[in-house]
Amino acid sequence: MKRREIRSDIAWATPKKIVIHGLDLCEDIVGKVDFGQMSFLLVFGRLPHANEARMFNAVMVILMEHGITPSSLATRLTYSGAPEAVQGAVAAGLLGLGSVFAGSLDNAARMLQQALPDPKNPGDLDRIAAETVTAFRSRKEIIPGIGHPFHKPIDPRAPKLFQVAEETGFSGPYVDLMKKIGAEAERQYQRVLPINVTGAMAAVASQFGLPWNVCRGLSVAARAMGLVGHIIEEARQPMADEIYARLEDEASAHLRPKE
Amino acid sequence: MKRREIRSDIAWATPKKIVIHGLDLCEDIVGKVDFGQMSFLLVFGRLPHANEARMFNAVMVILMEHGITPSSLATRLTYSGAPEAVQGAVAAGLLGLGSVFAGSLDNAARMLQQALPDPKNPGDLDRIAAETVTAFRSRKEIIPGIGHPFHKPIDPRAPKLFQVAEETGFSGPYVDLMKKIGAEAERQYQRVLPINVTGAMAAVASQFGLPWNVCRGLSVAARAMGLVGHIIEEARQPMADEIYARLEDEASAHLRPKE
Amino acid sequence: MKRREIRSDIAWATPKKIVIHGLDLCEDIVGKVDFGQMSFLLVFGRLPHANEARMFNAVMVILMEHGITPSSLATRLTYSGAPEAVQGAVAAGLLGLGSVFAGSLDNAARMLQQALPDPKNPGDLDRIAAETVTAFRSRKEIIPGIGHPFHKPIDPRAPKLFQVAEETGFSGPYVDLMKKIGAEAERQYQRVLPINVTGAMAAVASQFGLPWNVCRGLSVAARAMGLVGHIIEEARQPMADEIYARLEDEASAHLRPKE
Amino acid sequence: MKRREIRSDIAWATPKKIVIHGLDLCEDIVGKVDFGQMSFLLVFGRLPHANEARMFNAVMVILMEHGITPSSLATRLTYSGAPEAVQGAVAAGLLGLGSVFAGSLDNAARMLQQALPDPKNPGDLDRIAAETVTAFRSRKEIIPGIGHPFHKPIDPRAPKLFQVAEETGFSGPYVDLMKKIGAEAERQYQRVLPINVTGAMAAVASQFGLPWNVCRGLSVAARAMGLVGHIIEEARQPMADEIYARLEDEASAHLRPKE
Repeated sequence: MKRREIRSDIAWATPKKIVIHGLDLCEDIVGKVDFGQMSFLLVFGRLPHANEARMFNAVMVILMEHGITPSSLATRLTYSGAPEAVQGAVAAGLLGLGSVFAGSLDNAARMLQQALPDPKNPGDLDRIAAETVTAFRSRKEIIPGIGHPFHKPIDPRAPKLFQVAEETGFSGPYVDLMKKIGAEAERQYQRVLPINVTGAMAAVASQFGLPWNVCRGLSVAARAMGLVGHIIEEARQPMADEIYARLEDEASAHLRPKE
Repeated sequence: MKRREIRSDIAWATPKKIVIHGLDLCEDIVGKVDFGQMSFLLVFGRLPHANEARMFNAVMVILMEHGITPSSLATRLTYSGAPEAVQGAVAAGLLGLGSVFAGSLDNAARMLQQALPDPKNPGDLDRIAAETVTAFRSRKEIIPGIGHPFHKPIDPRAPKLFQVAEETGFSGPYVDLMKKIGAEAERQYQRVLPINVTGAMAAVASQFGLPWNVCRGLSVAARAMGLVGHIIEEARQPMADEIYARLEDEASAHLRPKE
Repeated sequence: MKRREIRSDIAWATPKKIVIHGLDLCEDIVGKVDFGQMSFLLVFGRLPHANEARMFNAVMVILMEHGITPSSLATRLTYSGAPEAVQGAVAAGLLGLGSVFAGSLDNAARMLQQALPDPKNPGDLDRIAAETVTAFRSRKEIIPGIGHPFHKPIDPRAPKLFQVAEETGFSGPYVDLMKKIGAEAERQYQRVLPINVTGAMAAVASQFGLPWNVCRGLSVAARAMGLVGHIIEEARQPMADEIYARLEDEASAHLRPKE
Repeated sequence: MKRREIRSDIAWATPKKIVIHGLDLCEDIVGKVDFGQMSFLLVFGRLPHANEARMFNAVMVILMEHGITPSSLATRLTYSGAPEAVQGAVAAGLLGLGSVFAGSLDNAARMLQQALPDPKNPGDLDRIAAETVTAFRSRKEIIPGIGHPFHKPIDPRAPKLFQVAEETGFSGPYVDLMKKIGAEAERQYQRVLPINVTGAMAAVASQFGLPWNVCRGLSVAARAMGLVGHIIEEARQPMADEIYARLEDEASAHLRPKE
């Protein structure tokens, strides 16, 4: 069997030190680098400048917590059965971050990155936006990153993220293209279709150079922390047993014989 | 059926705003609060002071990344089969953060919090340390938080974390007790048994007032970000297929007929 | 670095055949061996005799499905967010099979196997039962495998499983010991404490020679199939969105401003 | 808020009995119904006839076990870190059953069911096959269910499954269509492209009336049992630590300073 090399450039350790992307964990990181900067380091392989850090932190915090959701409910229900395995309760909550929720983030980033493969030479963004919307429309596909079933008429997170992008110098061609796609979609569909949070995140993540197929990873990792918050509350003030009792009772009421 | 209340105090949303622990996501958080502060908010329900933030960030970054581990390997192998479901690859890597790895963090925090239920009235810490070590020894149980199979003689992360604790005012009774337990263990076992990273983390988390049974949650959430870093590298520079090919070949060589 | 051998005795494959525990998948298994026999093969490394198959099938089917539970709810909620990743929805439901539910199975099996390490020489089972109950009682630990919060006074699955054990020749020393522990517990605690389903399963699994620490694996694998049934129903007749809407509304009602 | 009904038709329980799809667990199932029949019941809501059971069992056993794979490796690596949470180790292994592996099963079933929405009125299968292959080819999409990277020239599991289908009366229009698509693909691409195991499974699952989007559920549930087999072996004869040690050493060798 021919062997290929197995190689990772992320980190190495000896008994005396741990080095991550060239930085000594104990000398250069702990006590000096915060959680946001460290996350940036693990994603991009280097520490961020101040503006990069501010933009990246904005992306990380925006989807961490949205109260009681299918995801936080899955975590709480799992915790109630396996409180000794907190890692499983977090994992259960992450597993629902799929096509319905996080998928629009990846899809919007793919749309942007495929429409604009070389952001250094953006070309005519109006034309690209028009062609993109027309192509989605002709395939009868939903354009990702615009419209929101709950946060309407406007998802307040999108303009906020774009404002931070403006202030930190991240308002480049992908942000422009996302805005133009939104405007063009409103024109073609004759409907109010403002950019939503995943559309704005996709634009900013593309400005950062993050490949579209790993964009949802940021939200997944951020949400992990939010789920720990739900576990802490569930431990103190549980709802899982009551949810179970109520739903079991209602769901099978038509099957259970009358007493 | 008698109903009990279902209630969560974490967050609420209307179409126009999302409020988390009393802070408006768009007005008060995005662009202003960083990932570490936001994580603190989700764990403790309020934003941290500067010293709290520095100490908390140190705890969060210290276990995020340790290169190729069983956990990052599980993520990479899972990603190779389901690249469209990044959430599953992250979840798979988290699931190994159990008793062998993260367990010593919970166990050390439990030991400290049970030995010192009221840190405002610590009493005689020398006596408590001696009783704790004696009790573990008499039950033939391993004392959590001391010694390390690889980082020896000293796990460099523990003194570093204690140094940050000193600088930020977190060097309180739980940190003292952990140090005294380490010293007493060395005395009773006549072996070099320095405090390891989970022992130091457990002491600091206890200073923060975090219940012992959710301590591992912090490491689980932090590690999620590290695993995203491994997914990004695996997408660019894969090792999973080669691992599979090599191990399958070796593991079943004795079964496969000679050609 | 010194290398140790990596070896698995389970299966091997060439382009033309797949061999599992010595049986050719296409020649000896598909069309001839049923799902229960095959499961037995994967657990014990050989096909079962008729009585073994009947007993094993009884153990497998008994916990596959229990309607709406925290586990099936976690699966349904996860499926609603990631319908393209059915594997994640199944995994989410399995993750709650921890100490609260499946743990009593492992714990009961451990209790039996530690009390009776050599079932070929059982000795005085009455004395062992008395010592076991006394030891649990003196440690103020709950005796696993007896009593049930819902199925009372008697969990009907336990006597049924013991009946099949009787009919198939599996009513050996572990079954006897479990029954004697139940009787002794009732005597010492002066309460009705009949053996529950996990107590009966633990006794039978121990008769099969299954190590206590993997017993819950059988239930986990069986439940996976039940969760697929819930996914099929959720796809046709969904409840996850309604659960989310109701619970979000109720849980944060006290936070949301009156309109 | 307007409420919709929450309802499940699968099972109900009282303290004295558990009823699953109308069958009393203790009276009608345990000791009488085997694991394969019970799995059929949970998928289709009724017990199978003899031929259905034989065909269904063949589908269930065919993908349960394939030795050392990315999936079984993820399970073993996870078990090494969290041996107390067997459910997490099984879940980790299932999470890799995504688009690369199980996806072709769903995709093949979707292709068949969309091409032939009404199997009672199949129409001209030759024409449907030709149109299907032409459509995939014009979209430059891979035709699912044909060809195999390892099991070549022929995946032996496909003809075996078709043979059982023949013997049990399951060789209906979906099986015919799958065969015709395979033949047509070979004609159009001028390459040997025999039907693989997922193509054959998709055809049989479609004959059973299983919706394409839950087909992979069967394989996921079956594989859960196989993963338990790997956990049992890993507990007795571990490979995870050695895998970790070797791969960590090799992957970071280029980073680690020479001593």
